[in-house]
Amino acid sequence: LMEDIHHTCQWGTGQRWGEKPTETGMSRLALSDADKEARDWFVKTTEALGCQTTIDAMGNTFAVRPGLRNDKPPTFVGSHLDTQPTGGRYDGILGVTAGVEMLKVLADNWVETEYPVGVVNWTNEEGARFPISMVASGVWAGSIPLETAHNLREVRGPATMASELSRIGYLGSTPSSHTSIPMGAHFELHIEQGPLLELANKKIGVVTGVQAYKWLTVTVKGRDTHTGTTDLKSRADALLTASKMVLHSHKLATANNALASTGIINAFPGSTNTVPGEVSFSLDIRAPQDETVARLYQMVRNDFAKIAAGHDVLACNASCTPGLPCSVSITEDFDSPATTFHSDCVSAVSTAAHAVLGSGAHNQVMQMTSGAGHDSVYASKRCPTSMIFVPCREGVSHNPAEFCKEEDCALGAQVLLQSVLRFDRL
Amino acid sequence: LMEDIHHTCQWGTGQRWGEKPTETGMSRLALSDADKEARDWFVKTTEALGCQTTIDAMGNTFAVRPGLRNDKPPTFVGSHLDTQPTGGRYDGILGVTAGVEMLKVLADNWVETEYPVGVVNWTNEEGARFPISMVASGVWAGSIPLETAHNLREVRGPATMASELSRIGYLGSTPSSHTSIPMGAHFELHIEQGPLLELANKKIGVVTGVQAYKWLTVTVKGRDTHTGTTDLKSRADALLTASKMVLHSHKLATANNALASTGIINAFPGSTNTVPGEVSFSLDIRAPQDETVARLYQMVRNDFAKIAAGHDVLACNASCTPGLPCSVSITEDFDSPATTFHSDCVSAVSTAAHAVLGSGAHNQVMQMTSGAGHDSVYASKRCPTSMIFVPCREGVSHNPAEFCKEEDCALGAQVLLQSVLRFDRL
Ligand SMILES: NC(=O)NCCC(=O)O
Ligand SMILES: NC(=O)NCCC(=O)O
Repeated sequence: LMEDIHHTCQWGTGQRWGEKPTETGMSRLALSDADKEARDWFVKTTEALGCQTTIDAMGNTFAVRPGLRNDKPPTFVGSHLDTQPTGGRYDGILGVTAGVEMLKVLADNWVETEYPVGVVNWTNEEGARFPISMVASGVWAGSIPLETAHNLREVRGPATMASELSRIGYLGSTPSSHTSIPMGAHFELHIEQGPLLELANKKIGVVTGVQAYKWLTVTVKGRDTHTGTTDLKSRADALLTASKMVLHSHKLATANNALASTGIINAFPGSTNTVPGEVSFSLDIRAPQDETVARLYQMVRNDFAKIAAGHDVLACNASCTPGLPCSVSITEDFDSPATTFHSDCVSAVSTAAHAVLGSGAHNQVMQMTSGAGHDSVYASKRCPTSMIFVPCREGVSHNPAEFCKEEDCALGAQVLLQSVLRFDRL
Repeated sequence: LMEDIHHTCQWGTGQRWGEKPTETGMSRLALSDADKEARDWFVKTTEALGCQTTIDAMGNTFAVRPGLRNDKPPTFVGSHLDTQPTGGRYDGILGVTAGVEMLKVLADNWVETEYPVGVVNWTNEEGARFPISMVASGVWAGSIPLETAHNLREVRGPATMASELSRIGYLGSTPSSHTSIPMGAHFELHIEQGPLLELANKKIGVVTGVQAYKWLTVTVKGRDTHTGTTDLKSRADALLTASKMVLHSHKLATANNALASTGIINAFPGSTNTVPGEVSFSLDIRAPQDETVARLYQMVRNDFAKIAAGHDVLACNASCTPGLPCSVSITEDFDSPATTFHSDCVSAVSTAAHAVLGSGAHNQVMQMTSGAGHDSVYASKRCPTSMIFVPCREGVSHNPAEFCKEEDCALGAQVLLQSVLRFDRL
């Protein structure tokens, strides 16, 4: 398993954080050349293990190993091989390579499952290059129109998902749909990406659901003017206004026990001596409950309009010259409501975790929800689903230094295998 | 004059703001292909008017028309043909084309000046593409090392001034220096770029000096983390921190009766679901007095360090979850101290303005200082210098809709010609 992880991390190697050869991050954006190489490895490796592979119209790649009977859909293991621009070696990669490891263990031990089992590599889970996360499992689930996904433009550049899928040879001819490629169940092993397991000194998280989130794009329009000749009160400064909004979103998140984050910001025209006339930025809002996200979204819309119009929402106008009004528009690019996983899968994972950990299990396993979205969110709309979390160092993820101990990768992979076998029997 | 302005605006035409063919802005970044075409026109046109042209190592292009005697350096008219990315048709362009118009008027009227006169097109005055404004007149004046300028990298991309000068064929063999290319005086006609002339209902500004400014680059470092799994207090959010700094710089500017502006901001890695671990932004600070700019700079350094460390400088921590500390570093990229123009040139302009405006002059001319930097700042270090301002609509500049009435362009060009002739006699 560790060999596969590090072998595949030769494609898209990122920033170094330690001395050892494997102590680098990853930068393997979806549908890049490096992603193509990792995909080719996945197809070659799973076919060599006796699987048949299918590529759908979103580039999702399904490898299926036949069972004793093949009249019911396979039990799948799934995750993703794409990474953040400054990501690590475990987010997604652990899940897919653990699926490949499962295929190897089944083959090595001549295990025949009741029904087929499979491994799927979902496209652009991260939403880092093409800004909708889990977009390709979303298409498969029927939640996102194929056309929306195909026309999705990369964050920096003109390419679309369709053009990049076809460029790297992964625009498959099979429709991307749960009806063409049905699943009996979907299990996903993933690093937690947060600190809870480590803080609680646990080994396995049995994931019962995923928090809600929305991705917004906020566009502020003011007026391009000269920085040296325009006094503060004659400016419609789109960047000053956007800065107030970023700060205010953090206040709103604090007040609502939620999260608000801006990862992307662009100021136009982008010249030192021109007050920006237009700024756009991403806003990612999250909370355990759909209602909280909806309330926060409403507050963002109301308050950003007020900030743009010049109202003193941040109570800083006494010390900050009020300028001319700007306008603001907000688009909702993506919405992922709170998800609850299927009790059959949750108990398969829980039983598997207890079996693998043996007598120590009672204080090494915990139930939890996920702060991050995963392809399991969309899989769960079309088949019983659950996830297995393993701890990662200091909860750090989306960072080159993301790290999961070998022991924890192995435990997670064992729980994954056992969960699939248990569900297959069920 | 108007024909030359609009003819040359075919190279690098920008956004449309009105219906008429000439109602567009300009986007002619320094040393772009469009800039090369405008430069070629300048060389061809001035040579056809009997000038000898010299291109120096910064691409500054000097066209000189012989005088009766040539044992003293020419009286120059100078400005620039480069524009902002979303600039207008007058900023810089008016000054160069009015110089060409002067050459035409002298030729048409068989005027022989006492000493030579010339027109210079300075390179990258805007500092928009290569982020030091007036960099090439700065090299000529001996204030900026040639190497610094040649190695200056474009804001977006890998090209340097040297590579682009050589690419477009404007890396001249003459040293860029006031000793190789001396000037008897430097006069510059420019739109005001601010609202004062229009508000006061004046036609001509006699410019006595230029305010002080500094350009800084601020880099904030935090930690890349996942937006969905990292609670607010566990984040070292470089963009939230930068937003506080932008807002605070505006407060400091307000308190000091100065200007502070951010035109460029970049967040890394730039992914919707990664809290940015690094943000850099430009900060342009200005005030009439050097001391004010120095004081503001000191305050920026102190307070930004405190904001990065998590001190509640903006008094928002009660409502905003404090996160982990970030670090901040500030580089000073450019410094232009306050400038006072030479009294001989100021009075040449003033006398010329009164002569051109005749009996109405007493309430149509005013003395003023410039909020924007100009090549005249550096020229003034090596020869007597002054400037002529004409009003522009609503004071708007660095904007496609920048506009100067034909009548005002013409008046300015007449004052420019008269100023040069007066100085030549003097
Ligand atoms: N696991 C993960 O990082 N997924 C990306 C989707 C999200 O932003 O939560
Ligand atoms: N005139 C003008 O816009 N010059 C650019 C230098 C500055 O930023 O003041």
